Amino acid sequence: MSDSSGIGLFGALFDRGAVDVSDQAWLQAMLDTEAALARAVERAGLAPAGSGAAVTAVARSGFFDNGALGAAAAATGNPVPALVRALTKVLPESAAGAAAAVHRGATSQDIIDTAVMLLARQGIDAILADLRAAAGRCAGWAAQHAATIMSGRTLLQQAVPVTFGLVAAGWLTAIDEARRDLHRVRTSGLAVQFGGAAGTLASLGDAGPGVAGLLADELGLAEPVLPWHTNRHRIIDLAAALTGACAVLGKIARDVTLLAQTEVAEAHEDTGGGRGGSSAMPHKQNPVASIVILGCARQAPGLLATLAAAGEQEHQRAAGAWHAEWQPLTTLLRLTGSAAAWTTDLLTGLQIDPQKMRANAASTHGLPQSEHLAALLSPHLGPLQAHDLLAKASARAAAESINLADALLTDPDAAAQLSEAGLTRGDIEAALRPESYLGATAEFIRRALAAHQTCDATVSPELVLPG
Amino acid sequence: MSDSSGIGLFGALFDRGAVDVSDQAWLQAMLDTEAALARAVERAGLAPAGSGAAVTAVARSGFFDNGALGAAAAATGNPVPALVRALTKVLPESAAGAAAAVHRGATSQDIIDTAVMLLARQGIDAILADLRAAAGRCAGWAAQHAATIMSGRTLLQQAVPVTFGLVAAGWLTAIDEARRDLHRVRTSGLAVQFGGAAGTLASLGDAGPGVAGLLADELGLAEPVLPWHTNRHRIIDLAAALTGACAVLGKIARDVTLLAQTEVAEAHEDTGGGRGGSSAMPHKQNPVASIVILGCARQAPGLLATLAAAGEQEHQRAAGAWHAEWQPLTTLLRLTGSAAAWTTDLLTGLQIDPQKMRANAASTHGLPQSEHLAALLSPHLGPLQAHDLLAKASARAAAESINLADALLTDPDAAAQLSEAGLTRGDIEAALRPESYLGATAEFIRRALAAHQTCDATVSPELVLPG
Amino acid sequence: MSDSSGIGLFGALFDRGAVDVSDQAWLQAMLDTEAALARAVERAGLAPAGSGAAVTAVARSGFFDNGALGAAAAATGNPVPALVRALTKVLPESAAGAAAAVHRGATSQDIIDTAVMLLARQGIDAILADLRAAAGRCAGWAAQHAATIMSGRTLLQQAVPVTFGLVAAGWLTAIDEARRDLHRVRTSGLAVQFGGAAGTLASLGDAGPGVAGLLADELGLAEPVLPWHTNRHRIIDLAAALTGACAVLGKIARDVTLLAQTEVAEAHEDTGGGRGGSSAMPHKQNPVASIVILGCARQAPGLLATLAAAGEQEHQRAAGAWHAEWQPLTTLLRLTGSAAAWTTDLLTGLQIDPQKMRANAASTHGLPQSEHLAALLSPHLGPLQAHDLLAKASARAAAESINLADALLTDPDAAAQLSEAGLTRGDIEAALRPESYLGATAEFIRRALAAHQTCDATVSPELVLPG
Amino acid sequence: MSDSSGIGLFGALFDRGAVDVSDQAWLQAMLDTEAALARAVERAGLAPAGSGAAVTAVARSGFFDNGALGAAAAATGNPVPALVRALTKVLPESAAGAAAAVHRGATSQDIIDTAVMLLARQGIDAILADLRAAAGRCAGWAAQHAATIMSGRTLLQQAVPVTFGLVAAGWLTAIDEARRDLHRVRTSGLAVQFGGAAGTLASLGDAGPGVAGLLADELGLAEPVLPWHTNRHRIIDLAAALTGACAVLGKIARDVTLLAQTEVAEAHEDTGGGRGGSSAMPHKQNPVASIVILGCARQAPGLLATLAAAGEQEHQRAAGAWHAEWQPLTTLLRLTGSAAAWTTDLLTGLQIDPQKMRANAASTHGLPQSEHLAALLSPHLGPLQAHDLLAKASARAAAESINLADALLTDPDAAAQLSEAGLTRGDIEAALRPESYLGATAEFIRRALAAHQTCDATVSPELVLPG
Repeated sequence: MSDSSGIGLFGALFDRGAVDVSDQAWLQAMLDTEAALARAVERAGLAPAGSGAAVTAVARSGFFDNGALGAAAAATGNPVPALVRALTKVLPESAAGAAAAVHRGATSQDIIDTAVMLLARQGIDAILADLRAAAGRCAGWAAQHAATIMSGRTLLQQAVPVTFGLVAAGWLTAIDEARRDLHRVRTSGLAVQFGGAAGTLASLGDAGPGVAGLLADELGLAEPVLPWHTNRHRIIDLAAALTGACAVLGKIARDVTLLAQTEVAEAHEDTGGGRGGSSAMPHKQNPVASIVILGCARQAPGLLATLAAAGEQEHQRAAGAWHAEWQPLTTLLRLTGSAAAWTTDLLTGLQIDPQKMRANAASTHGLPQSEHLAALLSPHLGPLQAHDLLAKASARAAAESINLADALLTDPDAAAQLSEAGLTRGDIEAALRPESYLGATAEFIRRALAAHQTCDATVSPELVLPG
Repeated sequence: MSDSSGIGLFGALFDRGAVDVSDQAWLQAMLDTEAALARAVERAGLAPAGSGAAVTAVARSGFFDNGALGAAAAATGNPVPALVRALTKVLPESAAGAAAAVHRGATSQDIIDTAVMLLARQGIDAILADLRAAAGRCAGWAAQHAATIMSGRTLLQQAVPVTFGLVAAGWLTAIDEARRDLHRVRTSGLAVQFGGAAGTLASLGDAGPGVAGLLADELGLAEPVLPWHTNRHRIIDLAAALTGACAVLGKIARDVTLLAQTEVAEAHEDTGGGRGGSSAMPHKQNPVASIVILGCARQAPGLLATLAAAGEQEHQRAAGAWHAEWQPLTTLLRLTGSAAAWTTDLLTGLQIDPQKMRANAASTHGLPQSEHLAALLSPHLGPLQAHDLLAKASARAAAESINLADALLTDPDAAAQLSEAGLTRGDIEAALRPESYLGATAEFIRRALAAHQTCDATVSPELVLPG
Repeated sequence: MSDSSGIGLFGALFDRGAVDVSDQAWLQAMLDTEAALARAVERAGLAPAGSGAAVTAVARSGFFDNGALGAAAAATGNPVPALVRALTKVLPESAAGAAAAVHRGATSQDIIDTAVMLLARQGIDAILADLRAAAGRCAGWAAQHAATIMSGRTLLQQAVPVTFGLVAAGWLTAIDEARRDLHRVRTSGLAVQFGGAAGTLASLGDAGPGVAGLLADELGLAEPVLPWHTNRHRIIDLAAALTGACAVLGKIARDVTLLAQTEVAEAHEDTGGGRGGSSAMPHKQNPVASIVILGCARQAPGLLATLAAAGEQEHQRAAGAWHAEWQPLTTLLRLTGSAAAWTTDLLTGLQIDPQKMRANAASTHGLPQSEHLAALLSPHLGPLQAHDLLAKASARAAAESINLADALLTDPDAAAQLSEAGLTRGDIEAALRPESYLGATAEFIRRALAAHQTCDATVSPELVLPG
Repeated sequence: MSDSSGIGLFGALFDRGAVDVSDQAWLQAMLDTEAALARAVERAGLAPAGSGAAVTAVARSGFFDNGALGAAAAATGNPVPALVRALTKVLPESAAGAAAAVHRGATSQDIIDTAVMLLARQGIDAILADLRAAAGRCAGWAAQHAATIMSGRTLLQQAVPVTFGLVAAGWLTAIDEARRDLHRVRTSGLAVQFGGAAGTLASLGDAGPGVAGLLADELGLAEPVLPWHTNRHRIIDLAAALTGACAVLGKIARDVTLLAQTEVAEAHEDTGGGRGGSSAMPHKQNPVASIVILGCARQAPGLLATLAAAGEQEHQRAAGAWHAEWQPLTTLLRLTGSAAAWTTDLLTGLQIDPQKMRANAASTHGLPQSEHLAALLSPHLGPLQAHDLLAKASARAAAESINLADALLTDPDAAAQLSEAGLTRGDIEAALRPESYLGATAEFIRRALAAHQTCDATVSPELVLPG
């Protein structure tokens, strides 16, 4: 077995996009943390000038053997002690004094937790970039298809009409909520971890809080009130924001799979490059992107549950619950990133069929709009009589597959009552047109687009720090 | 079987505190929503003057038969249609015109989702009140026990010293984070639901958004950008905030069960009123409050997973996923409320034993502070030699159960080196005292208390609306 | 608020069927355990003759005040100590000696765990009865509709044809697997719990194992190798079997919601008694039963996760994890029972539309069967040429919405090749008929029915013990 | 970054042991399935003689480029179509006829699901081998330490005495239950998947079921009643058995972390090779193996929830839910395997300290055995007076830290009553010795060992198939 692309058998599905939680990214994030700590220690006057630069110069994942570090992790329960030894060893003799700055004051958990924050930031930035693109596509549709009639569907049954623009506005608003939440977490929820063995930074004497502040500054992370070794609220908050994004993307993908059903056929995924197609069955266009999004998104709730359950951590540093976090959290980042990348792809290629949308909406013979006609008749006939008149005609329209207007006007009693109420055939047909029963649709689309502009201005796709 | 207290067999455990998600509370929340809608409809000029007041006057849970509503729910999948009929019927003849305002423009989901928001607000307020009390207790300890030495414990092993004040400050900071998050959700995450059959408010013509705004105003809930029938991001956000609080409370309870172990005995729960005690085994004081908190909190992650998975909802209103939310969400509110109430109780009664804390910390013969001595010796001996000297002495101290200072000073080589380094027995003993190796402890406590003051000022315990 | 039916607002949805985990059922199950223990103790010669009968006579839930027991639970973390006191007190003076038999040798967990086993047995029996009925309905369809053509659908796209009988056979086989698994758990997984304070039955001296055996005999439960206070494997096994059943029922309900879509319309739920119907929109028939089944079933995975996570229990009896089990487990029993009852209801009333099934299958112009024709042509043209010929014709058929046979025969090249291969129009049309491309359908249905007969013979609906 | 060991940064922790779900193992399992299918097709007479051998000869993971297959998966949602093309292409020209046997009748899901079954079998066998070793170690302790007194602990408080042999017997019984369940799943739950596009095997005409049977025979897997494309009961069953094993191992690891606490110190992990040790703090011996076991095991419930939720699959093959299974299931196999391997390691090296066990049990001054004395006094004093006498003495013993016997005999009233009851100091001290209050301990150990022998005979460590 070789692996020419490096993505493995399943990477194109579950590890698409720019989120990087590979071993190399993990290692580099730990090295970035150690390097930033060395610089902070130097800035605090606790190590010779140049120490920070010396450590930073060698803190490059390419200099280390992940396998050797991983093997050593079996003795300590994590790879940091071995990494610290290797990092110290790789310092050039000319910078031997920098050893005093390496890992100074830190415990393994400080390095791993901070590294996770760095991975989360890179991941969120990548996700936000994809979500921005996806939202932009939805916003385009919301405006363009503001009046494109389609059937609203509730409980998987056709109900009153909507427009595809409103559907897209719904997707847009949901994506924008997910973006705002991820932005909130990215801005204030990602904090440096630095507490030493038991959260007192004792080996730094009085200098601990100062170094912590400098470390936060070096990394561009928040400085927390306290070390959070066993206060995992921020991990749960982060995981929930990722899961919330997955839920939003899963909803969109679910809608597309339903709209793409052979019998509905109001949307289909791009089949460029042979995706989803089948030469043997040209009627079949598998909604591959939607399916993969669902395949990613549906893994999120279980991972979130694991992380939430891991929040119960003992004393100053936990025995097992902390270790149970690493893989679920980075898996969640990876899957959210993949779902976001696939969503951008899905929405970019998605084809809409307005004719089919209208045809499907028309297939129920105007019945969804009977409510509208009842409202017009009520002032004349009273609500009860109006309802009865329409219920009877609706039943007949459904039974005979004729239009509701015809069902009304070919019934002498009904025709007489409509006439008395001053409603002409034209009035009736107008009332039964889906266009005349859209309520707040246009206003809602307008609102969604306005909120989206604010979101785009607020949630800029954060720049990924070099690292 | 009778039930004199109305709490049932398990209510004192899993339904303690002021969160109310009983059937009666559900029903009243739905009625409050319908009443507010009637008032909003009247204010919008869509129903006769007095309609709102008339509906409000009869929208009292005591007027309805929950069982009959529940039985009718089998025909429609939810109890709202039956409630609307019953509510209309209970209007006095003199207010017959108010019927036009009842449920006007709404679909069942509008009523249930908005009712859930009201239940969530009442629940969060109750939880915040309990968390405020719990945080206050922790803040008191943080100040009072700022210097009370105890052993820091990592991986369930004694490590370097901390103080009980720092432990309490850690609990405090975690509770305050949970409070801020719940406050955030309460302030901006709880929004009215009002979209009608398919989210267009079609039956209200152009008046829909106006009524939605008035409804939000009547209920004091946020007005969302769009109806959120199938955008469940806010449900996941709410559930995550509750679960985050549970995780924090579970961590505290876990710590107490560990500190209360017979062999540790640094804390024990209040045994007033016979709680947790055993006349036959007076040495045994079961940490009942902690155990019940854990019993509540550990149910949260699974419920959160259910709610997150339910976020994938089809089209305009979902077929099943929405229904799967109701009980997990109110169960989560209930359990969080119960955990919070039990935590206040736990912390109010918790007894601390500073003597035992000190004794336990002393039982490791000063070894946790050897790191401190190494730091003092390093400038004189070099770090390597300092480390070796202490490692040898530490091994002997552990093996012979003698103090590290004695192990050092009774070893002629070591004694000579210490003497050369200018360290007297007094210096050594001072360095090995836990008090001299607390690092940033005092500063961290100060920070936690300062942040707590801000939190108290920001997150006021919201008033519970009558209802 | 009153409650004339006693089912509450949501009981008709989430607590339908015969599973009973009400407070009264809990209390009675605990009393049944205490009574059985008293009889066992008497049989072991450790209490006066008549003790068992005396305790049994008063062990009736109607004699106790659940609210008072529940209130007392706050002091001990569970209601058993209060129940034991109340049970002893309610013994008539004439049977005062029977007090020696009450709770003899037991700890609270013995009573609650054994009561849970009794609740589980009653619940499984109720579920099995409903599943037997549901399976019977599926078996009927499998036979009756063995040849009723419908479109097989993969990834929500029409694929090659199946029959509704095969779909029903698939449902049947899945239900039968769930039944066998529940039967396995019921038969061998439900065991008495009896270990005393720390699992040694010390207060019974040498008599403990004997009493345990008699207790198992009295209750008809298995006698475990050891008390299982902190070995929760059987709880996870039980919960998994229930969740497996929910998954099977959720799959069926999902299929029905999809088949009942307005645009598919191959099945619809019974609308008798107005269920799911809408007088205003007669085209709309909400699949209420399916939706409620999904609403129940989707709560199962999260509850299972909670129970699985609770399996990590400390030492001899756990501090919190055990308490976290009670409500999730009985909720899971309740929801599985409700889903099973709703499924029986769903399948009993489900209407199938074979004409619509055939029409939908025909709407893809024979393309799904092109594979069949390719197989017939391959020996003559070679597989590659056969494939190309059909791919070209399929593309044209899809583009022009004509039948594949016509697409082939109106293309001179294709017609010539078919003719050379000796295939007449009749041959071609026959090959493209769905009936001729069903493969193993009939055989698979036969197997499913045979396996079902075995299942019915093996998994009899167990009798519910009087309790 | 290089990776000399190939285990990556975290493999030594979360991917220890012989379970192999690497990309290479996945690929080989898919190739093994395709090869077996080719042989089955040949045996059924549907492909030229030698086809099976020809395909088998090239079905070796080393011949393929995982990255290229993975990249191609983006077009189809899974890597099988690309694999089939590559497999056909790699056939030598001399075996061109064998192409007719490749993937004959199959759909992608047939290959992936069957491959998962092969991975599961290999994984279960590896897990069973480790569990057998772990159980053997527990059985050894159960016999060896049958009389080694230690304190039974409930709710993390010392309760009545047990022996370490009984604790080990408890671990043993739990492991054996997990083994039996895994064995059950391995023996009857792992079934071949073979249904073709929609579960009818249509492209094989009448030959489908025959090929399915031969395929099952080739692979040594069960032949299911029906293809189980959207009946995922067996996946949930498999996942639950793995999670059950994780729960059992997590319980053992949790016990060890608690017993290894500095203040308890009744057990400690092997520190050979520097594991868990700290040269600076020789009193600290981190229970690394236990912590890693917990870190693995606590990820299982969330993964199980994901798999259970994925059980709701649409129609004939699902749109997303199936894809959501692959990684959680193989992750669960991997983590269970790692937990099992670490457990064997943990138990092999675990050091027990019987002296400390006895000392801890003695630290409660005989109070746990007061119940025993009460039983001896009851016949003479009546139960109430006996209880009161002991409660008073116990309270004094606890308050003054004296032995209960002394508390009794230095109280004149108590001494008199004891004397009247004919109990000498010797009798009292004997009754208060933990050894005299072990109840069924020895019998329970005997039973656990007997059941273990049966388990060893039944659940042989299955041979891992070459693969």
